Amino acid sequence: MSIDNLIRGIISKKSPIVVGLDPRIEQIPDSIVAKYKNEDYRESIKNIIFEFNKGIIDAVSDIVPAVKPQVAFYEKYGIPGMEAYALTCEYAKKNDLYVIGDVKRGDIGSTSKAYSEGHIGEVFYEENLINDFSVDSVTVNPYLGDDCLKEFYQDIKEFDKGMFVLVKTSNKSSSQIQNLKVEGKHIYEVVGEMVNEWNLKYQGEMGYSPVGAVVGATYPNEMISLRELMKKAYFLVPGYGAQGGSGKDVTNAFNKDGLGAIVNSSRGIIFAYEKSNLNYKDAARKAAIDMIDDINKELKICKKVYW
Amino acid sequence: MSIDNLIRGIISKKSPIVVGLDPRIEQIPDSIVAKYKNEDYRESIKNIIFEFNKGIIDAVSDIVPAVKPQVAFYEKYGIPGMEAYALTCEYAKKNDLYVIGDVKRGDIGSTSKAYSEGHIGEVFYEENLINDFSVDSVTVNPYLGDDCLKEFYQDIKEFDKGMFVLVKTSNKSSSQIQNLKVEGKHIYEVVGEMVNEWNLKYQGEMGYSPVGAVVGATYPNEMISLRELMKKAYFLVPGYGAQGGSGKDVTNAFNKDGLGAIVNSSRGIIFAYEKSNLNYKDAARKAAIDMIDDINKELKICKKVYW
Repeated sequence: MSIDNLIRGIISKKSPIVVGLDPRIEQIPDSIVAKYKNEDYRESIKNIIFEFNKGIIDAVSDIVPAVKPQVAFYEKYGIPGMEAYALTCEYAKKNDLYVIGDVKRGDIGSTSKAYSEGHIGEVFYEENLINDFSVDSVTVNPYLGDDCLKEFYQDIKEFDKGMFVLVKTSNKSSSQIQNLKVEGKHIYEVVGEMVNEWNLKYQGEMGYSPVGAVVGATYPNEMISLRELMKKAYFLVPGYGAQGGSGKDVTNAFNKDGLGAIVNSSRGIIFAYEKSNLNYKDAARKAAIDMIDDINKELKICKKVYW
Repeated sequence: MSIDNLIRGIISKKSPIVVGLDPRIEQIPDSIVAKYKNEDYRESIKNIIFEFNKGIIDAVSDIVPAVKPQVAFYEKYGIPGMEAYALTCEYAKKNDLYVIGDVKRGDIGSTSKAYSEGHIGEVFYEENLINDFSVDSVTVNPYLGDDCLKEFYQDIKEFDKGMFVLVKTSNKSSSQIQNLKVEGKHIYEVVGEMVNEWNLKYQGEMGYSPVGAVVGATYPNEMISLRELMKKAYFLVPGYGAQGGSGKDVTNAFNKDGLGAIVNSSRGIIFAYEKSNLNYKDAARKAAIDMIDDINKELKICKKVYW
């Protein structure tokens, strides 16, 4: 799917929201864990994680346009974890969701090429397509500069995919490097300018570039200057909810028409059942609806929203 | 294995060298590929990559102390690729090699924790240890700052492991972010100072910290100032050989006693057979010996080498 597909999904579902699929086995409901208790433990891991994610996807796929599996929580469990990642991405795609692989990869050119091929490109062996980790978009770390990004960009153009470059991340210590000032500009702005250069090269039918930016909800001031700087970039906004960002905080990520950003929540949605009387699927759905309502309410105050 | 083990291996083998295991199926000898032709293609991928790596490990394990599988080349091939990665790490550890997982991971705190557990920590599910991707040391990207690094550091201390933080990478566009100047300091020096702070907290018996630095052979000038800045950091030096760095270029990565750095070569060793009449194992061994001799010769000119 292209960035246009994502935007059309946001508009048709009236939902600038992405659900982060960050499974932590210790927080997965006992009812699921118990079901796979008698299997080989490696099979259990795979099945528990996948069944949990499947339930979340079933619960929210008609109300959100995208999911974002965070690969670290799968990689942690080795091969069975990565099998669950592959199954999750496949199931989400079957449900017409735009899948953002939150992999934060990035390396020297020839190595980034291998990452790109595996996650958003195509890999063949003897005419067989290997697409286990294939998603619509990935997150990319800019520390190695353009010759990392350009390898992803080639596959983005060829296969109609996307990437979100880490510009200003949501964590506390993100300022340590990202907020340093070079000749009057913060590093996050330098990276923002790099992203903007890619943006100006090409935009899809909906007016946005397939090269987006990660900008944390926890830094609303930086958000304002970055929105100004990268007009054609879609923003992937982490940090809402569990990390502290509010609906009001994220409005600065959006353009005047209410497009231009998609806000992520992971724990706040997928583990909402822990603070609820509902089962995990219903609790996730309710939490997603609450989040959509919260953000739409704030957006309608200050933007001319499409819907 | 700890950083002390790595250093003892370097001294006993007289070899400050790490062999990068970056398998590209299209460059693996036909004789290996043909052997697995009639298998299911996913099995073939796993077996071809692993057999190739096994041959390289067998050919060099008595003359080098460490190997560095670059995970991108495995991830590219999905699950079978990651199975080959796991088998390769396991086989290298069995051969008493120090294994550096070149994963360049890094994320917000709780996510970095998951990466760290999967690669250098311990993950249990119902008393079963899952250690598919477990290695001695990983490479880590510093763009998200200290709350990423500290998650890895906890596991480093607990399990006697290590990490190499990307400080100045070997690729052309590394200067784009890394060489920007903030109040008289380059970004790579700011990151170097972060590494040095970790270094001062703790050093192993051999006098070096388990928190090392990636510094490319292609930037010998930056190397000099970084060596001065991070006296207690072991340097992982990519960029020798195929990327253009010479034996002379890398000497600045070492301290006066000839310790303090380990130089990587990937393509130049594992695919040496392409420019040789030898079989791939003998060619790899010869290329490794040539590299060891080249670097030792240069080191002996300007350092008081241990051996």
